[in-house]
Amino acid sequence: VSLRSKRLAKRLDPAASAFLDSTLEDAGLLLDDIIGSLAHVSVLEDAKVLDATEAGRLRSALRHLFKDASEGEVPLFTEHEDVHMNVEVALTKVLGDLGKKLHTARSRNDQVATDLRLFAQRWTLETAARIRDLVESLLWLSKKHPKAVLPGYTHLQVAQPILLSFHLQAHAERFLRDLARLRDAYERLLVSPLGAGALAGTTHPIDPSISANALGFDRSFRNAADAVSDRDYLAELLFAASLALTHASGLAEEFILFTNQSFGFATIGDDYATGSSIMPQKKNPDVFEVTRARSGTLLGALVASLSGLKALPLAYNRDLQEQKRLFVQTFPLVAPNFGLLARMLRSVTFHPERMEAAANEGYGDATELADYLVRQGTPFRDAHHQSATLVRMAGQKKVPLAALTAKEFAKVNPKIGADVVKHLGPHNAVKGRKSPGSTGPAHVEAGRKQLLAELATIENFFVAAGQAREAAWMTLLGKTSKVKK
Amino acid sequence: VSLRSKRLAKRLDPAASAFLDSTLEDAGLLLDDIIGSLAHVSVLEDAKVLDATEAGRLRSALRHLFKDASEGEVPLFTEHEDVHMNVEVALTKVLGDLGKKLHTARSRNDQVATDLRLFAQRWTLETAARIRDLVESLLWLSKKHPKAVLPGYTHLQVAQPILLSFHLQAHAERFLRDLARLRDAYERLLVSPLGAGALAGTTHPIDPSISANALGFDRSFRNAADAVSDRDYLAELLFAASLALTHASGLAEEFILFTNQSFGFATIGDDYATGSSIMPQKKNPDVFEVTRARSGTLLGALVASLSGLKALPLAYNRDLQEQKRLFVQTFPLVAPNFGLLARMLRSVTFHPERMEAAANEGYGDATELADYLVRQGTPFRDAHHQSATLVRMAGQKKVPLAALTAKEFAKVNPKIGADVVKHLGPHNAVKGRKSPGSTGPAHVEAGRKQLLAELATIENFFVAAGQAREAAWMTLLGKTSKVKK
Amino acid sequence: VSLRSKRLAKRLDPAASAFLDSTLEDAGLLLDDIIGSLAHVSVLEDAKVLDATEAGRLRSALRHLFKDASEGEVPLFTEHEDVHMNVEVALTKVLGDLGKKLHTARSRNDQVATDLRLFAQRWTLETAARIRDLVESLLWLSKKHPKAVLPGYTHLQVAQPILLSFHLQAHAERFLRDLARLRDAYERLLVSPLGAGALAGTTHPIDPSISANALGFDRSFRNAADAVSDRDYLAELLFAASLALTHASGLAEEFILFTNQSFGFATIGDDYATGSSIMPQKKNPDVFEVTRARSGTLLGALVASLSGLKALPLAYNRDLQEQKRLFVQTFPLVAPNFGLLARMLRSVTFHPERMEAAANEGYGDATELADYLVRQGTPFRDAHHQSATLVRMAGQKKVPLAALTAKEFAKVNPKIGADVVKHLGPHNAVKGRKSPGSTGPAHVEAGRKQLLAELATIENFFVAAGQAREAAWMTLLGKTSKVKK
Amino acid sequence: VSLRSKRLAKRLDPAASAFLDSTLEDAGLLLDDIIGSLAHVSVLEDAKVLDATEAGRLRSALRHLFKDASEGEVPLFTEHEDVHMNVEVALTKVLGDLGKKLHTARSRNDQVATDLRLFAQRWTLETAARIRDLVESLLWLSKKHPKAVLPGYTHLQVAQPILLSFHLQAHAERFLRDLARLRDAYERLLVSPLGAGALAGTTHPIDPSISANALGFDRSFRNAADAVSDRDYLAELLFAASLALTHASGLAEEFILFTNQSFGFATIGDDYATGSSIMPQKKNPDVFEVTRARSGTLLGALVASLSGLKALPLAYNRDLQEQKRLFVQTFPLVAPNFGLLARMLRSVTFHPERMEAAANEGYGDATELADYLVRQGTPFRDAHHQSATLVRMAGQKKVPLAALTAKEFAKVNPKIGADVVKHLGPHNAVKGRKSPGSTGPAHVEAGRKQLLAELATIENFFVAAGQAREAAWMTLLGKTSKVKK
Repeated sequence: VSLRSKRLAKRLDPAASAFLDSTLEDAGLLLDDIIGSLAHVSVLEDAKVLDATEAGRLRSALRHLFKDASEGEVPLFTEHEDVHMNVEVALTKVLGDLGKKLHTARSRNDQVATDLRLFAQRWTLETAARIRDLVESLLWLSKKHPKAVLPGYTHLQVAQPILLSFHLQAHAERFLRDLARLRDAYERLLVSPLGAGALAGTTHPIDPSISANALGFDRSFRNAADAVSDRDYLAELLFAASLALTHASGLAEEFILFTNQSFGFATIGDDYATGSSIMPQKKNPDVFEVTRARSGTLLGALVASLSGLKALPLAYNRDLQEQKRLFVQTFPLVAPNFGLLARMLRSVTFHPERMEAAANEGYGDATELADYLVRQGTPFRDAHHQSATLVRMAGQKKVPLAALTAKEFAKVNPKIGADVVKHLGPHNAVKGRKSPGSTGPAHVEAGRKQLLAELATIENFFVAAGQAREAAWMTLLGKTSKVKK
Repeated sequence: VSLRSKRLAKRLDPAASAFLDSTLEDAGLLLDDIIGSLAHVSVLEDAKVLDATEAGRLRSALRHLFKDASEGEVPLFTEHEDVHMNVEVALTKVLGDLGKKLHTARSRNDQVATDLRLFAQRWTLETAARIRDLVESLLWLSKKHPKAVLPGYTHLQVAQPILLSFHLQAHAERFLRDLARLRDAYERLLVSPLGAGALAGTTHPIDPSISANALGFDRSFRNAADAVSDRDYLAELLFAASLALTHASGLAEEFILFTNQSFGFATIGDDYATGSSIMPQKKNPDVFEVTRARSGTLLGALVASLSGLKALPLAYNRDLQEQKRLFVQTFPLVAPNFGLLARMLRSVTFHPERMEAAANEGYGDATELADYLVRQGTPFRDAHHQSATLVRMAGQKKVPLAALTAKEFAKVNPKIGADVVKHLGPHNAVKGRKSPGSTGPAHVEAGRKQLLAELATIENFFVAAGQAREAAWMTLLGKTSKVKK
Repeated sequence: VSLRSKRLAKRLDPAASAFLDSTLEDAGLLLDDIIGSLAHVSVLEDAKVLDATEAGRLRSALRHLFKDASEGEVPLFTEHEDVHMNVEVALTKVLGDLGKKLHTARSRNDQVATDLRLFAQRWTLETAARIRDLVESLLWLSKKHPKAVLPGYTHLQVAQPILLSFHLQAHAERFLRDLARLRDAYERLLVSPLGAGALAGTTHPIDPSISANALGFDRSFRNAADAVSDRDYLAELLFAASLALTHASGLAEEFILFTNQSFGFATIGDDYATGSSIMPQKKNPDVFEVTRARSGTLLGALVASLSGLKALPLAYNRDLQEQKRLFVQTFPLVAPNFGLLARMLRSVTFHPERMEAAANEGYGDATELADYLVRQGTPFRDAHHQSATLVRMAGQKKVPLAALTAKEFAKVNPKIGADVVKHLGPHNAVKGRKSPGSTGPAHVEAGRKQLLAELATIENFFVAAGQAREAAWMTLLGKTSKVKK
Repeated sequence: VSLRSKRLAKRLDPAASAFLDSTLEDAGLLLDDIIGSLAHVSVLEDAKVLDATEAGRLRSALRHLFKDASEGEVPLFTEHEDVHMNVEVALTKVLGDLGKKLHTARSRNDQVATDLRLFAQRWTLETAARIRDLVESLLWLSKKHPKAVLPGYTHLQVAQPILLSFHLQAHAERFLRDLARLRDAYERLLVSPLGAGALAGTTHPIDPSISANALGFDRSFRNAADAVSDRDYLAELLFAASLALTHASGLAEEFILFTNQSFGFATIGDDYATGSSIMPQKKNPDVFEVTRARSGTLLGALVASLSGLKALPLAYNRDLQEQKRLFVQTFPLVAPNFGLLARMLRSVTFHPERMEAAANEGYGDATELADYLVRQGTPFRDAHHQSATLVRMAGQKKVPLAALTAKEFAKVNPKIGADVVKHLGPHNAVKGRKSPGSTGPAHVEAGRKQLLAELATIENFFVAAGQAREAAWMTLLGKTSKVKK
């Protein structure tokens, strides 16, 4: 089964053939290709290209092939160039010329575009599911540690005390935005390109909305040339993954810091740490380090995608094959990483006494002291100055602000009363935060509930999307039970 | 007005000061900073930090400042570090200590986050408006040229004839997706960070929803640490711009090709071309070339943004200042480019005879010939073979397929009748396309109407968004008439 | 053989284990790892850690292992984490505890750094060899086509006629610079990190220069912490590859244009083109398209590398494993691409008559006409104006400038004599170029010889480097004949 | 002075004009443009295009212009499009038509290529000088702190104790490699493109080596089409800067960590820190943070450059203007950053007691303990196990290993003698490192001297390069004294 036209007198140089071969990355698209063909059978039957018997035989053969492929029993051969031809060859072995007839009113250009969108749906559903796991772990940890305080940092310098739960919820906010971006991208995935042909549509009076509906797409393409050349969705998903992993890299960075001996804020479970063959004392946070690195890897994939799309004329160019390769390669790098972080976070032990000590050592309550002075009538600028002076005094004694004596306080400002200590120290500071969205305990708890509600909303979207997709596939496969996706 | 704490005994090294200075990029945020302060006045009044008289005086001074700034009469001084301090200094000159009181219950961290989101709204509205202009120009051209045919390309080799209008609409599809991405991003811009303080909220019992509403945001932040450190929206907009300019680069590439002498498909208006001081014959498409280059520039800005965000611990780090600089710098590079393309496209003259000749020369109707043979009962593989043979014969004679003689046709397949020419040639080929979304004339016209409808929908979104924003600003400025944005 | 310290009470979560596993990419480093161990035996023997018998047994076992690995008979097991432990396990099976003794005075940190540098040497030598093939093909084509003219373009508008050979040599210049960059990078590869230990050197009084010399490095590391953490060479090679592929993308773009029907300047050999299953006339330049795309892929790899290295503290961080993965993955994408282009270019047929016609159609000789007028005393500005007028006249008649009649010439400027045609037309224009480095035929031929000389010089460097490396390996393997690298 | 050919009937749309204008970035090239013109005068005089009087008048006018431009008194006007036309207009004002004659035998294409190479030389010399400052500061600090120990990290977990000086020298090694890359890039800058014309050379029999020599280039171009289109050097310099700033980002990251309160290893001078308006205790390392961010910014510029160069056909395309803009914009971002770091590092105070305590707390001497046991005859695996047990015991007591009692040691291994403490603790551990390149004090001191020697060598290269360049300029300017570059 060669696609080489009679115009081409020579066989392809084997080096060129190896260079252009895409069966390796296509292996990930095999199920998508078969299911797409099943939908196309209905289009051809509707257009009278196939009669009912032919359609039935094709369906049956494709469903068998799908089953075999699900069980890993359909090898792809390089000599057949790509997944589409491999499927055609497999069909033809069983059905003879009828197998080839399936290629009516479509081309590899719309076929690969369909496969990629179906694959991208699976990629997105899986990634979204694992990010949801991660958000749940963060909120689980947040609920588990309602009272632990942490030095809040700006410029990685101790700034103001915050609740650990508040901090974890800040991370959850980021990943919720990632889920929203994945949701928007998913909606743009639901346009079927099947039936666009090479670039101009087809001379057969087919109805592309039939396969679009059968595959669970929202609608069919509106312009064939756009349908075969659009790869926006890959770039958009790579961006979403890149930003989500950038968020993960920030989380990873913090845990690398927090488990460092000088911080000592947290310990990773032994089942997520590595040791050293020569340093007996080591316990290394490798998963966090590789996560941090992977944010760069996804950024690289995004650059490769966008740079690869630059300045291409319409419509299909073989450059687009590289887009496919790049995207398929990221599948094992994205969703599993979030899933692993979700599990690993639940193994973390926090050390509240170390966190509190660090907040004290860094004088995170200096703002509270200044605010206390202002409430007593000291002008803000003077209050700021006096608080800084007291920080310096406490620093020389190596004690927290609250451990200064009444005499020492009075030396700087005689109005400072014994009640000042009620405002000092990380716990008091945190309790003093009164505004919505602040680290005040009631506001943090309220925030957690809002996060849970938003998570549920977005989870509903993805669950419904996944179910709709699965139902469509089940119907195409002639099944009622669950299919392994 | 120095921000230097009493803890710091020395003045900043002037080299460090120059290095850290952001007044240049902050100039673009001046109006946003003032309007944000106006909203904050209401928050402080509600929280009883300001009484009605104080609030009134602050509002009046800020409105004057806004007016002056609109007219370019508020210079920013490097010695005051950033836009926020410049505004505070200007206020203090007029109001004395009352000017400083405005800084209660906020910090520069939530302030700059607010300014940036307001700026990003303007950036997005302007970009969306200019992309809409471009889509309109494409659809205007499409309507103007309903019958012109173009050789459709795959691999930049002549593939199948298409309508020029179909081709232009394929480009319009891309930009419509860009508008949808901008819309989604805009919705995520509508969360106000004002009132988050340095990172932990504030001890004042303020209601941040007051300023959120006043500024036209949808809601206020939910977590203060996230509010001050989130720069997702900048990365998201840079991605959207990068992809939109990638689309523009493809359009530009085509016009660079089409205006090349060998193609000769189109001519640019003289008011958009450049000449040469030494080559008298030259007419160069510089705007298209710079557009093509700018897709790389925006990709670079996106990389700088995402790489810059990598592995930052919570919450505010000065690294974020670079995000601001990068983003503000893209303002003149994005929207104006789309606006210019929109105008320039309307100056283009197409040369249908050259396009048609190219479609003929490339034998774009070879598929039609094969299809004809199939309809006559020739098996597809043989039909494909015979069509290729006839292409070779026509190529040797340097004529289109339709110019082959009946004898020549018969030599290859005696069943070929005189009616074959009704299917050959670009115009016949195009008419033969029957499927929805194809290049068939009726389908193209239907597609154009659908595009117009979708454009109107998204235009409504942005117009409404812009009006809501303007109304909010007008209220804050105590005006009823239009403000110059 | 587990590396897990007794500190770690639990087995690694299988998901974490899968996430951190590097055996796949390490497979490419297997030979490098074994050869590095052979060099380390001599270091340990010199330091009396091993006696002569032990050293001999280790050498013998390692040489056997190398032979098996060369023949693909050494599988790597994921359970042993990485290539280093796999080799140790294989050794220990044969030698018992003596196998483990080899790990004295080194750690996996310096070991992987050594492996990577050895691999990077092979990567560089192979890439340089294939780029040399490409330069040779360009110069071969240039010699083959000494007289063919091409329209030289600026802004892809016909500018001035040039020789095809001149044009091909311009491409050769670029690739020669790439070779120079690879040479500079290769020299920086010749620093051995072996003996740096985990990061601080070792308590054993070893002499790292012994292994450095044995492996063919120029010198040993100077600072152990730098030695284990330096990955500059990977970024530098990825940059060099990225720029070289950017050059290739320009070449590819041109051949995509030149083989387009409207240009028709060249035809690719049938053994390097692909057809279409549905369009009988197609002959597609897929290799050039994928080459163009790959420049984006390498740029992505470079971004992943540099972004991944950002803000890492000293010394080893697991992030560096991702650098290894990224780099090893590029091996099949770089050198083979240049090799394929080199072969493919030799299959190209040029069509001088089409190139000449295009130069004429674009009035590439308008500058010559203006220069002629200047030589006749017309002020430059007027000459430029008159030439433009004549271009317009010729354009309306659709003829070349040289086909204008004496009367027509005289109408614009009566001084124009019959001799003007000696200066017009692409061939005359090219001959008129007098300056060194110009497209004048003698200068092009001189340039070709200079290019050949420079190519020979740089080829000598790489050949010598490759031989030195091979000699070192042969000695370590106890052989005198050639080893298959 | 319009460059618009008579072919173009309309004025450029002002929006297009604004879009294409490059005078802003060209301002940085003004001196380079004038000096290039001075060199071109000699070429034209040699070719008899100018007689001695004309040449003299042009030289005099250009030297005056250079002086005015040096003093900032030559404004560039947007209406003249670019720096070249601005200079021509300024000349013509003084000299009339003679000013225009200078444009003989060159075009803006070779002119801008020349300007950019001259600018890139200045960029490189300045960057190299500031990186040298930084290396000197690192080595100055290293010499200043010969005995301070630091916990060496892998995975940011305490690994083995090292000398602070050893650590600082590891950073110096990186920057020395950056200098080597800049040197290699500088050598590739020394090819003059002047005389290449638009792309094909010129009809005038000029000798381009005259201007090449006069400007201090090593040689003239070999191929005119390559000469006008080559921008490799910009990409290469952006890569070198990007990697050097990546190194700086690692240094910055460490100082951000080291000045964090939990580490407390170092304090920044007050003249390089910033405070907070609301948090009295703050002292922020903003310069380090912006440095860290800038590594991303330069990576973005590199991506913009390489992506912008992708798939451009020969020769000049207006896309190259964007390369100019991108590169010129980085001038203030690169060299000054290194210069500032060099100054800032000298302001840092280290806290050896905190560093030593951290090394103890992290049991960085556990490897030493295991090595001690091995020397006493314990098999390595058992020694590793016993050392880990003792680490756990010390950890429970919260004391360093050396503070365990003889009884405790004996409980784990009775052979452990009183002498064990001579090997424990960071200082003993460091002294125990015996191999070249290790952290052993003698080896660190030897390394410092080697670094100084290598720095001197590379400094000599750049000083000589700078002097050669200045001498050439002086001659062109008819001066003997120093010129302000």
